[in-house]
Amino acid sequence: MKTWKTLERKTILNHNKFLRVENHVVQLPNGQIIDDWSWVVTPDYVNVVVETEDGRFLCFRQYKHGVGGTSLAPVGGHLEPGEEPLAAAKRELLEETGYEAEEWFDLGSYVVDGNRGCATAYLFLARQASQIAEPAADDLEEQELIFLSRDELEKALAAKEFKVLGWVTAVALALRYLG
Amino acid sequence: MKTWKTLERKTILNHNKFLRVENHVVQLPNGQIIDDWSWVVTPDYVNVVVETEDGRFLCFRQYKHGVGGTSLAPVGGHLEPGEEPLAAAKRELLEETGYEAEEWFDLGSYVVDGNRGCATAYLFLARQASQIAEPAADDLEEQELIFLSRDELEKALAAKEFKVLGWVTAVALALRYLG
Repeated sequence: MKTWKTLERKTILNHNKFLRVENHVVQLPNGQIIDDWSWVVTPDYVNVVVETEDGRFLCFRQYKHGVGGTSLAPVGGHLEPGEEPLAAAKRELLEETGYEAEEWFDLGSYVVDGNRGCATAYLFLARQASQIAEPAADDLEEQELIFLSRDELEKALAAKEFKVLGWVTAVALALRYLG
Repeated sequence: MKTWKTLERKTILNHNKFLRVENHVVQLPNGQIIDDWSWVVTPDYVNVVVETEDGRFLCFRQYKHGVGGTSLAPVGGHLEPGEEPLAAAKRELLEETGYEAEEWFDLGSYVVDGNRGCATAYLFLARQASQIAEPAADDLEEQELIFLSRDELEKALAAKEFKVLGWVTAVALALRYLG
């Protein structure tokens, strides 16, 4: 299938380091031109489903402004400029929980919005995790670290307790991977 | 956990019917005020994993500007103003494929961005689908309707051929539901 041509791209909002908006003038394969295609740029991020050495899953119960309440969440955070996704995943795991993991599995990278881009989500499963330090997270949100058994993780997913798209995806793909 | 207070919200970009941006002044439980919290408003949407009467799965191979190439995709689209998610799912299925389905299962609704909102994704599994009309979609993108066996769907998911976050989520959750 033929790709669309981006004839022009212009930043129309530079809000802060978390959000920039572009206007794209795009041309479709049939020649049609759309002169106001919205393109959103937010930071790429990682989410990591973490299984400890004794088979428990590390999660947070966390307040999120986007949810307007609390949700279960896997480990995660934004990539630093120039940072590789796997390095970001290991950094976030250490910062948020003080854990490191021996085995890492790539669950894929996915575009957040198929039309407007927004960001790329890099998802991982980390196994054989053990604590080597105290957490040192500087997140704004209140959060509580909890440990779930495999059965509890399955039930929390089914009960829709992971309320953010990247998080439910990471958990569903990790459980598929674990079989 | 205490919720953040939104002290002020103001539209700072009204790009078109697909994108509006707000600035929020928010107050954290510890009293800290953040005066430039980005809030993105894009249309809520549905994605539907559709299984036909004879056990095949309806998918599209589709060009998407956000991907910059082609991806496998389930049925999906934006909610019309005031439209219920299930009604939108049935409408999109009929418009895009000419099919209707007897059995519908709610796979949950998820916030696209836990910080900035963006939209809510409503995910469904539809079973016992059969064709009752010709497709009447008016999507801008080139797309090809394809039928996958259960095994082919599992393999396409594992091969990361669903490249958009909402799509991979819908497929992973539907396959979990089908067991």
